[in-house]
Amino acid sequence: MFPELEPLRLVDHHCHGVLPRDLGPEDFERFLTEAAEPPPRGGSLFDSQIGFALRRWCAPILDLEPHAPPGEYLARRASLGAAEVNRRFLSASGLEELCVDTGYTPEPLLEPAELALLAGARAHEVVRLEDLAERTIADGVSAYAFAEDVRGRIAERAGHAVGAKSIAAYRVGLELSGERPSGADVKAAAERLYRQAERALAGGSGRPRLADETLHRFLVWCAADSGLPIQFHVGYGDSDVDLHRVDPVRMTPLLRALEPTGVPVLLLHNYPYQRHAGYLAQVFQNVFVDVSLATHNLGHRAPAILAELLELAPFGKVLYASDAFGLAEHYYLGALLFRRGLGRILGEGVEEGAWTRSDAARVARLITSENARRVYEFDDKPDDGTGTTGPP
Amino acid sequence: MFPELEPLRLVDHHCHGVLPRDLGPEDFERFLTEAAEPPPRGGSLFDSQIGFALRRWCAPILDLEPHAPPGEYLARRASLGAAEVNRRFLSASGLEELCVDTGYTPEPLLEPAELALLAGARAHEVVRLEDLAERTIADGVSAYAFAEDVRGRIAERAGHAVGAKSIAAYRVGLELSGERPSGADVKAAAERLYRQAERALAGGSGRPRLADETLHRFLVWCAADSGLPIQFHVGYGDSDVDLHRVDPVRMTPLLRALEPTGVPVLLLHNYPYQRHAGYLAQVFQNVFVDVSLATHNLGHRAPAILAELLELAPFGKVLYASDAFGLAEHYYLGALLFRRGLGRILGEGVEEGAWTRSDAARVARLITSENARRVYEFDDKPDDGTGTTGPP
Amino acid sequence: MFPELEPLRLVDHHCHGVLPRDLGPEDFERFLTEAAEPPPRGGSLFDSQIGFALRRWCAPILDLEPHAPPGEYLARRASLGAAEVNRRFLSASGLEELCVDTGYTPEPLLEPAELALLAGARAHEVVRLEDLAERTIADGVSAYAFAEDVRGRIAERAGHAVGAKSIAAYRVGLELSGERPSGADVKAAAERLYRQAERALAGGSGRPRLADETLHRFLVWCAADSGLPIQFHVGYGDSDVDLHRVDPVRMTPLLRALEPTGVPVLLLHNYPYQRHAGYLAQVFQNVFVDVSLATHNLGHRAPAILAELLELAPFGKVLYASDAFGLAEHYYLGALLFRRGLGRILGEGVEEGAWTRSDAARVARLITSENARRVYEFDDKPDDGTGTTGPP
Repeated sequence: MFPELEPLRLVDHHCHGVLPRDLGPEDFERFLTEAAEPPPRGGSLFDSQIGFALRRWCAPILDLEPHAPPGEYLARRASLGAAEVNRRFLSASGLEELCVDTGYTPEPLLEPAELALLAGARAHEVVRLEDLAERTIADGVSAYAFAEDVRGRIAERAGHAVGAKSIAAYRVGLELSGERPSGADVKAAAERLYRQAERALAGGSGRPRLADETLHRFLVWCAADSGLPIQFHVGYGDSDVDLHRVDPVRMTPLLRALEPTGVPVLLLHNYPYQRHAGYLAQVFQNVFVDVSLATHNLGHRAPAILAELLELAPFGKVLYASDAFGLAEHYYLGALLFRRGLGRILGEGVEEGAWTRSDAARVARLITSENARRVYEFDDKPDDGTGTTGPP
Repeated sequence: MFPELEPLRLVDHHCHGVLPRDLGPEDFERFLTEAAEPPPRGGSLFDSQIGFALRRWCAPILDLEPHAPPGEYLARRASLGAAEVNRRFLSASGLEELCVDTGYTPEPLLEPAELALLAGARAHEVVRLEDLAERTIADGVSAYAFAEDVRGRIAERAGHAVGAKSIAAYRVGLELSGERPSGADVKAAAERLYRQAERALAGGSGRPRLADETLHRFLVWCAADSGLPIQFHVGYGDSDVDLHRVDPVRMTPLLRALEPTGVPVLLLHNYPYQRHAGYLAQVFQNVFVDVSLATHNLGHRAPAILAELLELAPFGKVLYASDAFGLAEHYYLGALLFRRGLGRILGEGVEEGAWTRSDAARVARLITSENARRVYEFDDKPDDGTGTTGPP
Repeated sequence: MFPELEPLRLVDHHCHGVLPRDLGPEDFERFLTEAAEPPPRGGSLFDSQIGFALRRWCAPILDLEPHAPPGEYLARRASLGAAEVNRRFLSASGLEELCVDTGYTPEPLLEPAELALLAGARAHEVVRLEDLAERTIADGVSAYAFAEDVRGRIAERAGHAVGAKSIAAYRVGLELSGERPSGADVKAAAERLYRQAERALAGGSGRPRLADETLHRFLVWCAADSGLPIQFHVGYGDSDVDLHRVDPVRMTPLLRALEPTGVPVLLLHNYPYQRHAGYLAQVFQNVFVDVSLATHNLGHRAPAILAELLELAPFGKVLYASDAFGLAEHYYLGALLFRRGLGRILGEGVEEGAWTRSDAARVARLITSENARRVYEFDDKPDDGTGTTGPP
């Protein structure tokens, strides 16, 4: 619909590693969507928008006909092997910068530098705040020293990483207070967390789990104080999310408090609240938005939600991300469906005379990469293999 | 758009009886939508999507031209008589199984067996849980025996009925706890309900009205323990509903608790939360969804909400229902608009190469009947005239 | 798409004054959307749906080519001068009645009579309830006399004004109780407000700010008692709004309580809750709805939300409004985009055979003006220059 988009390479401003191992059919379905596993009475997850999109668009990358059946697809994938599959999809995605959330690794995943190599892109690190805090405890830092230590670690990581990520949505929801937490509040919350961690350790359940409104907020303010752009998981995710508690407009008090800092706030995913996110992007100067994760999950319907996001969100506030995790197909599908969706929206507007072709081309450049460059200032970070790696 | 849909007969997995009596113009409008009656300063309810759809599609069934004016339509309807009108619409709806909620009868309605005969379908019973509990009190069962008696009645009905239905949405909203209620909690709640029932009886207002979070939840667990698929009213309904309290994502804690039972949970209607419902259908293995009631009310716009439901909902988790009530036109319009909407979505995807014609045809079979058969296992119920009746 | 709409003049049932002064580039952007000012890292607000729509449609009114760049547009606007710009846009908007909310004037704006003259329309006043109450305090009325004085002022204004407006949404959200507040409750709330006003005065921050659920509700009931149609700000607004607290379905208890009074309740804007508003318009006899403010902000996407509003809202319950404020472009864009959106919806339905051309034309007349006339009964107000002014 809009050929000017084809040559544009994308900044994927929020993504994860992919699995280096081969996957059996059940494993593959387990990583395909946000469902933990295929439903016993609900048929295959291949029978869904993402499944149909995968068969249509990913099969040819594996030298199959479009729409190849799931069995054939999985057999071909297995015969090529994970390394070749990952290489094919990442190199075909047309990416130039990756911002990789390295803080969620339930099993080994490709590292940013490996992703960068496969994609022919540079990779940058995004620090998952809750993971950093939980590791601080695991490292034996005392409750007394916790707050200062965490603050120091975040400041240190800010020298290399391009952003921070909060998963408050998964733990307590997004109704975070607009107050910067006091030292005493953080101290009391840290003590609660340490007591819980001790009980968890005593009970043999291992690692502590931070789920405390004060501490999530504390982490956000540490990141803001370090000048790190802050990404928030918003909306759609797996069944751990209480979807009505993760509407981004619940963040309004916090967004009001963060606006004067000038630190960019990036609302990720947002489905089904993409219109709410667009509103926040209009009225708050430092709010930026995407429809990652939903883009590949919605398949043929992806243009519909991008169009809703672009109702109120200024075109200078919208970014691309895949939120790819586990399957390299997510990288490819996310990028392809985003390009097609944006191309359809921009192209139809040109056809109907709503805007000019050159304005549309400019918007395409903004959304595919320029907005992200303005937010993350990639070139201000040292290219020393710690935060940023890979081909130029 | 998709001729493969035409010959497929539908399982209507949630519907009600229709009126056996003739209807004057005001009465007809009263049953047309979820409005209690036509607005004095808002014009006729015929001037709405459902009114226009009814004139377009239902008029020819009464031998009138498409778009016949309301007055002409009502006159023709009156001259044919309710029996003939009901016969025409039900027989033209292309149904093969009906799951009839028999628990809401503000005035006499056709019984499942009568609907089955007119539709040339089999009819099955769905037990309305709150109605069963309120009848238990009306039957003189003591507060002391209430819980066990209700549990026994549900277990007994499970031998014949294909499902249970909860209207917690109408009474307390959908924020139901994820805990199975304790015996003591149920006992205390039953005592509250009995005291209220006594006051109601003393005040002459008759039948008790169950509206208690613990008891709604208790009924749901009784149904689950009996292995009955559980339908929930969700979203759109009449002005008794507080729409912000009936967003299906408020059920997340309960859905988490029910998932391990494997009992199917069916979210009915869902408008305007169809995307929320689709999300739940993806991430919870036992959640199934529809857009009943909204389909005929939205008329020409029905495809829009079905497309939104099908964004995340796996195609093996989507069912058809009309939620027809009172007017036989609801059966016909629901079925016709659903077929047209699904046909448009599937056909456009084929045209644009998003999926193959044979995959689309398979999805059509899943959604029109196969998913419902898998959930309700109609053929495992005795065909003895108590729960399941009618041809063939 | 639907030429029958072209000659129809609109009742704009909710709008504000426009600026009589010339505007520099930054000032212009400040009034363009609901953002307080252009984002430092988010590009120009001209790069948004409203910006593109403005360049497409407003430029020709200033004798420029469609899509003229922002710089050229602003230069031409400045060279013509505010008076000529205002005249051109208002006279080109095709309006016949304006209901002007006169209670929000952060700086001098054109008065209703001036707007009326420029538009070639009649202008009517809408009383902003909170402004009236705050002025009552500023006028030195005692806390003791406050309630009666306010009630008297509203009754007096009801002789001239065509409606009242509540901005409870901006102050406390829309979860208003369904109870008419008692005299004692109002008295206690007034005393709280007076104490706050005294502190504000002592602190030098000037005018009191009413933000009290009881008092907002009291004002609504005063308006209802005076028989004034009541407008509510709902949904989309600037960053002072907590969007999740202004979903119109939160008003359900209040709407139930107001329904028996028969007083029209008008839900303004509603974005992104237009489907929720449509539901309320169907099930409550006295609820009327629009998609003002969103219409011009969404530009090319405006038809999408109008289509969603028209899913459940009976066609006799939908009105037009611009919610124009500050920029005369808002009047023109709102009217133009509304006509185009409604025309597309009605025209496509005719093309697809969903309704007849004559029914569509009738719906066009209802929505452009007849519904508003039925609600506001303009001709029952004295045309004496106090409430209603202007041609013809």
